[in-house]
Amino acid sequence: MAPSDPRQTKFVLDESRIPRSWYNIAADLPVPPSPYLHPGTLGPLGPDDLAPLFPMALIGQEVSADREIEIPEPVRDAYRLFRPSPLYRAHRLERVLDTPAHIYYKYEGVSPAGSHKPNTALAQAFYNKEQGVRRLATETGAGQWGSALAFAGAYFGLEVKVYMVRASYDQKPYRRILMETYGAEVVASPSTETNYGRQVLSESPDSPGSLGIAISEAVEDAAGREDTKYSLGSVLNHVLLHQTVIGQEAMEQMGMAGESPDIIIGCTGGGSNFAGLTFPFLGRNFREGASHRIIAVEPEAAPSLTRGVYAYDFGDTAKMAPIAKMHTLGHDFVPEPIHAGGLRYHGMSPLVSLLKEHGHIEARSVHQRSTFEAGVQFARAEGILPAPEPTHAIRVAVDEALAAREAGEARVILFNLCGHGHFDLSAYERFLTGQLEDYEYPREKVEAALERLPAIPAG
Amino acid sequence: MAPSDPRQTKFVLDESRIPRSWYNIAADLPVPPSPYLHPGTLGPLGPDDLAPLFPMALIGQEVSADREIEIPEPVRDAYRLFRPSPLYRAHRLERVLDTPAHIYYKYEGVSPAGSHKPNTALAQAFYNKEQGVRRLATETGAGQWGSALAFAGAYFGLEVKVYMVRASYDQKPYRRILMETYGAEVVASPSTETNYGRQVLSESPDSPGSLGIAISEAVEDAAGREDTKYSLGSVLNHVLLHQTVIGQEAMEQMGMAGESPDIIIGCTGGGSNFAGLTFPFLGRNFREGASHRIIAVEPEAAPSLTRGVYAYDFGDTAKMAPIAKMHTLGHDFVPEPIHAGGLRYHGMSPLVSLLKEHGHIEARSVHQRSTFEAGVQFARAEGILPAPEPTHAIRVAVDEALAAREAGEARVILFNLCGHGHFDLSAYERFLTGQLEDYEYPREKVEAALERLPAIPAG
Repeated sequence: MAPSDPRQTKFVLDESRIPRSWYNIAADLPVPPSPYLHPGTLGPLGPDDLAPLFPMALIGQEVSADREIEIPEPVRDAYRLFRPSPLYRAHRLERVLDTPAHIYYKYEGVSPAGSHKPNTALAQAFYNKEQGVRRLATETGAGQWGSALAFAGAYFGLEVKVYMVRASYDQKPYRRILMETYGAEVVASPSTETNYGRQVLSESPDSPGSLGIAISEAVEDAAGREDTKYSLGSVLNHVLLHQTVIGQEAMEQMGMAGESPDIIIGCTGGGSNFAGLTFPFLGRNFREGASHRIIAVEPEAAPSLTRGVYAYDFGDTAKMAPIAKMHTLGHDFVPEPIHAGGLRYHGMSPLVSLLKEHGHIEARSVHQRSTFEAGVQFARAEGILPAPEPTHAIRVAVDEALAAREAGEARVILFNLCGHGHFDLSAYERFLTGQLEDYEYPREKVEAALERLPAIPAG
Repeated sequence: MAPSDPRQTKFVLDESRIPRSWYNIAADLPVPPSPYLHPGTLGPLGPDDLAPLFPMALIGQEVSADREIEIPEPVRDAYRLFRPSPLYRAHRLERVLDTPAHIYYKYEGVSPAGSHKPNTALAQAFYNKEQGVRRLATETGAGQWGSALAFAGAYFGLEVKVYMVRASYDQKPYRRILMETYGAEVVASPSTETNYGRQVLSESPDSPGSLGIAISEAVEDAAGREDTKYSLGSVLNHVLLHQTVIGQEAMEQMGMAGESPDIIIGCTGGGSNFAGLTFPFLGRNFREGASHRIIAVEPEAAPSLTRGVYAYDFGDTAKMAPIAKMHTLGHDFVPEPIHAGGLRYHGMSPLVSLLKEHGHIEARSVHQRSTFEAGVQFARAEGILPAPEPTHAIRVAVDEALAAREAGEARVILFNLCGHGHFDLSAYERFLTGQLEDYEYPREKVEAALERLPAIPAG
C-alpha cells in the first residue's frame, strides 16, 4: 500500500508497535560464527571466563542461536521514551539532487543520548540490575556511548563509572557534562584509579589516552569489584542484537510507505548501528530470497572491512579483551583523529565481518571531507544536523541517488541516521572554514600492525 | 477515552493531523488589545509604518480579528519535517515525585533548531519569499531564534543575516556554527556593518553587545535595503499566532490520553512558547466556559509579569521598535546574565500582558538554581535534557505535582517543554558544581528604569 498523501514525510508508529523481540541473525547465518578465544591462553573462551564482566543473561545472548529473543517488558517500557523512532522520506534532499530515487532514513537521534546507543544501554542496564549488580564500568571516546549508559544507569538505578579518553575529556566537555547530569561519575583516562592507568601515567604523565587504554581501565575496574560489571557499546553479538529494533521498525514503516528498499546503507565502526538497521532485512534475504543490497560505509582512515584482513585478533590494544575472528587493521593500529570518533576502531563486529567475508554485504570507504559535504547538504535540505558517523552513510546514499539519476531508475534507498551532531559542531566549523583534513589510507602502518596479530594454535 | 495501555508514554499524531489553521486569540478576547504606537511620534502606528520591516501578509495577521487563519500548504509541508510534535506522559517523573498528579509535556525540541522557534520562522520565511523578498535580517542572543530562521531561510531559499550579541558570539560558538551550517551569515553585534553598530563601537570598542543593540542593527539593515525585511522571534501577535499549532496538537493528544489538563504551564520571556501552548486552551475558557488554570513562569531576574507595570513602553532599548502596551520593567532595564537567555527581556507580549492584567492567566517568578534543580531531576527521570528556559516551566510543574500530593488529588498538569538543552551544558556544569548564581529581584534598577517610560499623549 502506498501512502495516501504522496508528500508524506514522516512514518510514525504507535508505542504498541515497539518490537516484542530482538532478531538474532545467528539463527539464519549460512555458516556458523567462529568462537571467541581467551586473550591469555589463546584457547577456547567459556561462559565462566566472561562471568566477571557480564551478567549471565547477556552471556547467554552472546552465544544464542534462537532467532527471536524476547525483549523484557521493563526494557520495552524504557524504549517508550523514544521508540518507535521515526522513518523519514527525504523529499527535499531528493529535489536538491534532482534524482528519481526515493530516499528514506531511519532517525535514531530522537533518543535521550541522541543516538542509537540507548537501545542496548537500557537492555544491558536492565539485565545487570536484575542480576543484582550495583554498578557498571565502561569506557567512552567522544561520549556517545558513555552518555547512553549514564542515562540507562539513571533509569534502572545503577551507578555508572565512565573512563573517558583524556583528549576528549579535555576537548569535548559537553558530553562529559551530559553524563554527569545523568548522574554518572566520569574520569579522564588514563586515571590514577586503576593499576593499568597508573602504569600508563608513570611512563607517560601527559598521555592523551586512547580507547584501548580506557577499555583496559574499565575492564580492570569491573573485574576487580564484586558489585561491578563491564559494559560495551558495540562489536559484541548481544550489543548488535539489541539494535535490531531499528530494522524491525523500519521494515514496518517502509511498508507504510508502500515501498521496499533496493539499497540499505549504514556506517560501520564497531558495527552496531549498521547491524541494527540491516540485519532484519538480511534475514529476509536469507530466509525469503529477498535481494536487498546492503552497503557498509567506513572511513578511509580506518577501513577494516575494505582493507583489513579477516583473522583472529584482540578486541583491544592492551590484549585484555576476548580474541575474535573479524576484519582488523591490527589491534595496535591507532586511526588518525577523524571527527567520526565512533568509527575509529581497528576491528569490526565478528558478525558483520562474517557477512562481508561471505559476500552477503558490500563495503565502501569514504574520505572525511566528502562525508561532511554530504552532511551539510543534508542539513540544509532536511533540517537535521547529522553526527559525523552517519554522514558516512549519507555520502553513499547521495552517491547512490546520483547513480540512480544516471541510470534513470527510481531506486529506493534507505539509510540509518544513527545520531545528531549537536555535540560535533566544532568539526562542522573546520569543514566550513576549509580546515578539515583528509587522511589517506595508512598502508604501511596497517601492514606493520598486521604483523603483530596473535598466532592462534591450529585446531 | 482513556488510552488502552495505562503505561503509554508518547502520544503521537500522523502528519495529516498537523493543524490546518492557526488560532487567533484576538477573536475571543473579552477586551480589545491596545494599538501599537509609533516610536518616533508616539502617535498611532499604521500598516505603512511597518511595511519597510514586514511583508503585508504578516502585517495583516498582526491586526487580524479572524479566529482562524489558514496555514499555507508550503508551510504545512515544511512542518512535516517535525510536526506534529510528541506529547509525553511523564510516568517516571510522577513516580520520582510520588505524586497522584498526572504530568504531561508537549516536546518542541524535536524541531531542526531544537525549539518551538521554527513554527514561526518557517511561516515568516514563506510570506517574505512570497512577496519577493530576497533576504532577511534578524538578531539573536544565545542563538535559538537565529538558528531557527537560518534553517527556515535555507528551506525557502532566502539569504539570512544574523546579528548575534557579541558576548554570545564569543562564548557560545556552537549555535553560531549551526546557523552557518544552515548557510546563514552571522556577525557579532555591535558590528561595523551598520551606522548604529559603528556608533556603539566608536563609543565603546569592547562592547559585549546586547539584544537591544542587535535589534537596532537588524532593523537598520532591513529598513535600509529594498531586498531585505526584518524578522522577529517573539512578542508580536503574528509570532504568537504561528505558535498555536502547539496547543491545538496538544488538545488532540490530551484527548488521546483521555484527560483534560487542570493546570497548563509555560515559561515566558517574550511569550511565544507560552502562548503557543496555552492560547487554544484559553480560547476554550472564553468560548466554552472551560476552566483550565494557566500559569506563566518567569525568572526572578526579569519578572515583567509579576513585578513590572502594565504600560506603554518601547520594545527595544534603542527606541526604534514600536511602542506597545505591555508588562514592562523599563526599556533600558538590562536583566542579569541568567542562563535562560530567551527569558532575558524587559517587556512581554502585549497579548500575554493583557490576559494577565485581566486575570485570565496567573504568573509566577522562580529563581535560577531552583529551575536547574528541577531540570536535572527531569533529565534523570525522563531522559530529555531541557533548555534553561523550559526548566522554569518544569519547576512549577513539579511544585504543582507536589501540591497535588499534599492535597491528595490526581490533578492533571500539562507543560510546554519548548526546547532541548544540548547547547546549554556549560550552565548545567555550573549548577552541578555549585557555581550557579541566584539573582534577587533588582527593585531599585527597575524603579529607575520605569521612570523613563515614554510619556504617551492622552487620547
